[in-house]
Amino acid sequence: MAQKAVFYHAGCPVCIDAEQRFAHSLDPRAFDVEIVHLGEDKSRILEAQQSGVRSVPAFVVGGEPYHINFGAALSDLQ
Amino acid sequence: MAQKAVFYHAGCPVCIDAEQRFAHSLDPRAFDVEIVHLGEDKSRILEAQQSGVRSVPAFVVGGEPYHINFGAALSDLQ
Repeated sequence: MAQKAVFYHAGCPVCIDAEQRFAHSLDPRAFDVEIVHLGEDKSRILEAQQSGVRSVPAFVVGGEPYHINFGAALSDLQ
Repeated sequence: MAQKAVFYHAGCPVCIDAEQRFAHSLDPRAFDVEIVHLGEDKSRILEAQQSGVRSVPAFVVGGEPYHINFGAALSDLQ
């Protein structure tokens, strides 16, 4: 069964690049990907923080954060 | 056609976790993944550096580096 993966981003160039490269290219048999734009949905920032996300773009899989390069600090989105 | 993606790592816990999460979970229709252990194959370090890799674990896709979290600096592997 596919595991849930949340991709958090903020529309920044680094974010969009990572989204195009990875968020749309994970094996659908392995991951069920949800894409969350934290600039547009600030109500999800707390959830990202609680999963250990410090910057975007980042995936959270199995409760663990995976930061991909550095686009923007989460603290700058609040 | 699948695009070449090189996953560079050094056997560190962060590397192995990222490898298990992502290197084996990319859509095979999108990516043809090569896994390179820079601790065991130091001859590939220069190539990683030239692609902009500064730390492992990292993917290089289309000539661009994608660092995932931080396991070890490339400079510490030389």
